[in-house]
Amino acid sequence: MKEWEAHARSVVPYTPGEQPSGDGIIKLNTNENPYPPAPEAMRALKEIPEDTLRLYPDPTSHALVSAIADFYGRREDEVFVGVGSDEVLALSFLAFFDSEKPILFPDITYSFYDVWANLYRIPYVTLPLDESFAIRKEDYLRDNGGIVLANPNAPTGSAMDMADIEDIIRSNPSSVVIVDEAYVDFGAASALPLVNRYDNLLVVQTFSKSRSLAGLRVGFAIGQPRLIKILSDVKYSFNSYTMNRPAILAGAAALGNRAYFQETCRKVMKTREWTKQELSRLGFTFPDSKANFIFATHPEARARELFDYLKTKNIYVRYFNKPRINNYLRITIGTQEQMETLVHVLEEYLSLCKK
Amino acid sequence: MKEWEAHARSVVPYTPGEQPSGDGIIKLNTNENPYPPAPEAMRALKEIPEDTLRLYPDPTSHALVSAIADFYGRREDEVFVGVGSDEVLALSFLAFFDSEKPILFPDITYSFYDVWANLYRIPYVTLPLDESFAIRKEDYLRDNGGIVLANPNAPTGSAMDMADIEDIIRSNPSSVVIVDEAYVDFGAASALPLVNRYDNLLVVQTFSKSRSLAGLRVGFAIGQPRLIKILSDVKYSFNSYTMNRPAILAGAAALGNRAYFQETCRKVMKTREWTKQELSRLGFTFPDSKANFIFATHPEARARELFDYLKTKNIYVRYFNKPRINNYLRITIGTQEQMETLVHVLEEYLSLCKK
Repeated sequence: MKEWEAHARSVVPYTPGEQPSGDGIIKLNTNENPYPPAPEAMRALKEIPEDTLRLYPDPTSHALVSAIADFYGRREDEVFVGVGSDEVLALSFLAFFDSEKPILFPDITYSFYDVWANLYRIPYVTLPLDESFAIRKEDYLRDNGGIVLANPNAPTGSAMDMADIEDIIRSNPSSVVIVDEAYVDFGAASALPLVNRYDNLLVVQTFSKSRSLAGLRVGFAIGQPRLIKILSDVKYSFNSYTMNRPAILAGAAALGNRAYFQETCRKVMKTREWTKQELSRLGFTFPDSKANFIFATHPEARARELFDYLKTKNIYVRYFNKPRINNYLRITIGTQEQMETLVHVLEEYLSLCKK
Repeated sequence: MKEWEAHARSVVPYTPGEQPSGDGIIKLNTNENPYPPAPEAMRALKEIPEDTLRLYPDPTSHALVSAIADFYGRREDEVFVGVGSDEVLALSFLAFFDSEKPILFPDITYSFYDVWANLYRIPYVTLPLDESFAIRKEDYLRDNGGIVLANPNAPTGSAMDMADIEDIIRSNPSSVVIVDEAYVDFGAASALPLVNRYDNLLVVQTFSKSRSLAGLRVGFAIGQPRLIKILSDVKYSFNSYTMNRPAILAGAAALGNRAYFQETCRKVMKTREWTKQELSRLGFTFPDSKANFIFATHPEARARELFDYLKTKNIYVRYFNKPRINNYLRITIGTQEQMETLVHVLEEYLSLCKK
């Protein structure tokens, strides 16, 4: 160990999914959208004015904030943007979870929550999902320093009842409740209508899934102005210019095409429902998913072995070697054609297993 | 105050310079480069493959890291990239300054250092520059939890003797010494050659000034692999994908054109030297600048009033209302033509003052 390491922070970072590249790969491992973004996004990138790249971007990202406010019918001072919902969440943890009381989140959820808590030394308690991987509302009515809930939850795909979410928000006026809605556009109810009623609610969403812009890194949060002001102050204490010009321009442009967005989500949901039927037919079980992935297990196939087998067939899914979920695979919904190939390969594998 | 604010972090954020836009503005207030980036950067943006925006970027930013390593003759595991040098510095503060001992930096320097220290609750001591705004090496030989030095310093423009920087690094083996070289390409000596010798040295640079890519948000750090590994772990605990696809592609492409980069820096330096002569002729004094700005004061003009006057002439410079420097203006070097206009306006103003 070097002498200076005594003053260095020791952390165990989050491990993102693999990013394999190559022809013929079916990439169902990081919940990307199989369809391209709205053509307006690409056009905006190609049309960035030549003389602007040398200039700092607008630190308020006004064009993007304004487009989001328009889309969701909010005021501009109710919108915060960041480099993917990951940056929005990381800065929100830093801004709102500054307590000696532990923050609360489920034992099975987005695996970045404990990483951020550890990075910022925020005490936390994880609360077990029930046997069907559902959140138990009552668990979140205890004293705490903050709450973060993914809805739909990851990697399970389950959506909570909005009445339960509202109960949690209402019962915790002295805590900020972050509802992480990365997957909400694929069929779950959003907590956005509750923003008017609760000053302690922050709703976080992303352009990475439903808007097919994972490569652009755009996420956002919506909350009442005081919440957004405090989050912005933390952002301006971290990096004045988090959003580069391409992200601001292409992100704002993508929002203009509401019909394209709705159609893309509809296609993903249709294929998800088809995939559910097929997986059931093959003997898989899974929580009912409202996301662009299915979290599936099979009584006769070990998830880890199936994960490795699928890779040999150029199909990448996600496996988490963690308690309670180490016999599950998280399978992103790709195109209909990709899912047909997947089902075909799964069918072959299961028939091999039975021999 | 809302109930939940008891758990929220209270900070005083950094204030970036104004970003006025409009025809005829001469923008000399945020140290941007007056010349466009290498044409390869623009071309790379226009040629981003249609089907890639929906996919997450490479979390390692390999194409960009590799281009930086090539340019500077370093290994890839000695290079870290971030969203501007601000993100690189913010994450470096979080990673390396985790001590109960105070970190050290000058009283007059980049005004983000104390903002980051306050955000992360890092204790710090500021050490006064001498009367000529030079760093006193001896001040940095005391016990500390880390050191950060801007070289050339901002907003003064003064460069340190490399032997003094090396003395500070050598004398502090139990601290990481960050040398922030945002402006180094305009004529100062870099600490990069010291990286091989000192495992506690982190050199931070940016694409925002000398490479004319402020709008793309690309910064980087170079240090020995163990230092870079710890910084990367903190980054992966914050946001897996900080660099979007446009930043990785256009940033890497820009590095390919070394001749363009050298020519741009040469032009800025030539205009800077001309501007120094003219400012001297008009009675201004300033520390000798090795940066793309000049930090000037005049015995007969109040900086604050001159700042306001220049704005009425559509010329934006930077004024800091802080002790010791509240009668100075930081003037970015623009094109030769812009600086000729500035000198003309200053000359007029001073002749008015004398009446």
